[in-house]
Amino acid sequence: MRQSELFTQPRREAPADEVATNAKLLVRAGFIHKEMAGVYSFLPLGWRVLQKLENLIRQEILTLGAQEILMPALQPKENWQTTGRWDKMTDLYKLRDRSERELALGPTHEEIITPLVKNYLNSYQDLPLSVFQFQTKFRMEPRAKSGLLRGREFLMKDLYSFHRDETDLQHFYDLVTVAYKRIFEILGLTEKTYLTLAAGGTFAEFSHEFQVLTPAGEDSIRLCKSCHLAVNEEIFDRKNNCPGCGTQKLESETAIEVANIFKLGTNFSQVFNLTYRDETGVNQPMIMGCYGLGVSRLMGALVEILSDERGLVWPEAAAPFPIHLLSLGLADGPAARAAGPLYERLIKLGREVFWDDRREISAGEKFAAADLVGLPYQAIISDKTLAAGKIELIKRSTGEKSFLTEDELCAWLG
Amino acid sequence: MRQSELFTQPRREAPADEVATNAKLLVRAGFIHKEMAGVYSFLPLGWRVLQKLENLIRQEILTLGAQEILMPALQPKENWQTTGRWDKMTDLYKLRDRSERELALGPTHEEIITPLVKNYLNSYQDLPLSVFQFQTKFRMEPRAKSGLLRGREFLMKDLYSFHRDETDLQHFYDLVTVAYKRIFEILGLTEKTYLTLAAGGTFAEFSHEFQVLTPAGEDSIRLCKSCHLAVNEEIFDRKNNCPGCGTQKLESETAIEVANIFKLGTNFSQVFNLTYRDETGVNQPMIMGCYGLGVSRLMGALVEILSDERGLVWPEAAAPFPIHLLSLGLADGPAARAAGPLYERLIKLGREVFWDDRREISAGEKFAAADLVGLPYQAIISDKTLAAGKIELIKRSTGEKSFLTEDELCAWLG
Repeated sequence: MRQSELFTQPRREAPADEVATNAKLLVRAGFIHKEMAGVYSFLPLGWRVLQKLENLIRQEILTLGAQEILMPALQPKENWQTTGRWDKMTDLYKLRDRSERELALGPTHEEIITPLVKNYLNSYQDLPLSVFQFQTKFRMEPRAKSGLLRGREFLMKDLYSFHRDETDLQHFYDLVTVAYKRIFEILGLTEKTYLTLAAGGTFAEFSHEFQVLTPAGEDSIRLCKSCHLAVNEEIFDRKNNCPGCGTQKLESETAIEVANIFKLGTNFSQVFNLTYRDETGVNQPMIMGCYGLGVSRLMGALVEILSDERGLVWPEAAAPFPIHLLSLGLADGPAARAAGPLYERLIKLGREVFWDDRREISAGEKFAAADLVGLPYQAIISDKTLAAGKIELIKRSTGEKSFLTEDELCAWLG
Repeated sequence: MRQSELFTQPRREAPADEVATNAKLLVRAGFIHKEMAGVYSFLPLGWRVLQKLENLIRQEILTLGAQEILMPALQPKENWQTTGRWDKMTDLYKLRDRSERELALGPTHEEIITPLVKNYLNSYQDLPLSVFQFQTKFRMEPRAKSGLLRGREFLMKDLYSFHRDETDLQHFYDLVTVAYKRIFEILGLTEKTYLTLAAGGTFAEFSHEFQVLTPAGEDSIRLCKSCHLAVNEEIFDRKNNCPGCGTQKLESETAIEVANIFKLGTNFSQVFNLTYRDETGVNQPMIMGCYGLGVSRLMGALVEILSDERGLVWPEAAAPFPIHLLSLGLADGPAARAAGPLYERLIKLGREVFWDDRREISAGEKFAAADLVGLPYQAIISDKTLAAGKIELIKRSTGEKSFLTEDELCAWLG
């Protein structure tokens, strides 16, 4: 894409009404636009990040054999009354239909998926089953000052699984853990991400969270660096040692929960009477699990953790484009003239390129804007590099420089 | 995908609580699940149709140079008060935030996009601009008995354009018309789709709708078959002749509006003070257009128009899979044994295949289910065709039969 055609351009100043680093940077760089506290529009670059993350997560979840669906945001009050969460869940948005019938605006989908599955599954032979969706969720957050880390409206991947027994649930639970770890590894978050033992709510003794260390987070965890495991502060009175090695020498850190895995057991299947017929013909309640991963929250977390004083730094798997082509010099100079054909060549090769083709913008301003936007690589064409028959390639995260010919650049991007 | 692994299976009976053909068939075939009137979950096959349609539409809209974004469903009351639609729009869902602040659940996004664009555009040099999104919309429909044709929650592509003058708007308006026509052509709806002159609301004298002829529709149009143009009944007192040839010999038909294009003029830019600086430095209000296309409604319309007494009939561009592989005969017979390797071969070639690998299901039942699901082609492997070294290929829409070798099938699917 040509940067001159993009309707958002990086700004010098941070927005006055944001306190969170992720919101400040993403607004400045033109990735998101604030509509109100906790509610953002995703602009072209930001939308591309969401899509990249969604596709990355989808690929990993599909390897689990899960089937993709799409459930609605509007949900009948009755379903929420059945589980008792209509009154209990304080951050549930409620609204009225024309007939004054009350509805919930879904913050999660156990109340929908459980009765839905009941229509299709009967026998032990139908199990296990796992289904997932990427869907917009709503939560009436009391305070929403953390940018994408805590949204009133946010994009989430939610996955639900159905099993005949605890062993089968545990097996799938472990597979999801591995898939999540792979996602965080691909995004370069492995070192900062702790599988954290947390409260199981009303459903189970414990659940697991994937907590990413950042001062911007709202959770406190106690971590064991040698096992790379943690315990959420909320359960520290019940569990005060490392779930791996048992040591009580745990360090306190601030973190943000980007994903969780939860054994629901038979809590939802019992209230909705979701059963399967076992080999002996007896009906048994299904054992359920649920597995959330906040896509827009993950985007915010990536910014909090990877950005530096110059701006955003995207890992390749989440970057809106892998490379930022910067043509410097006079509007009709050799570099500007060479950049167009190179851009066209890359596009023809099917490469995704973001080209700063803006005229009458100084080299310094282009560099600053490219650093702010934070694509993984910057490819600089100046009259000087051109004279040497090269393009300068700078890795955004490390500043590492190299020089490539056009052919080498095309091959490398492939 | 193996049909045995799909958690939904085609059912013999139509659901008792649906009256619309599209809902009856889509529920029976396992594409959608009703949550309440006008609100559906999209099951794996239905979700694939939505995705196919979304991608088809996206490709066409991108050729217009439009930039993709994602705006929120939660919208501030103030924006809707600014345009006066908070009180006027009777199908607007309203809800309250924790602080009792009122919010709208967006049925459309003029109230968001207009002030958003104001943050980024200043000069005539920034124009024209077009932005679009695929986003879930909410409308408090008084009656929602038409399945996907009239949803309370539905997926829509909405596109907004910004111009310096009427000529530029008209140019873009015409380009969108062409893009929409191409979409309907690819879906095989050209013959049934009429570009229809309709009311312009409070914004303009006229707008244009793309109306698809079906008795299931809720609109009445008067059409000229020779010009393939129509006039919406609602404006027939003002415009009672063909917009093409002028004839007054128009036929009355029932149709469903699947898309519209609308000249908004300066209605929204004026209330939000969205201006651009012209060449002489004077601020002028921007001229706007908006262009909707209902993705889930289009899915419903395709069913109403193309399905037959045996079930769904998908055009290739919307089908969840292009081909339904049916292996017949005994579970351990030659056909069943040959189908697996063929399926694996097709998957390795990157082909999308839906394979009815279900055991202990009769040939008759498999044929009936395949007809109900309605994939464009059925590839039959029976012991008989196998003995002749062939696979029988049946075109769902016409019943046309041909016989191919495995190699021919693989090459043809490419």
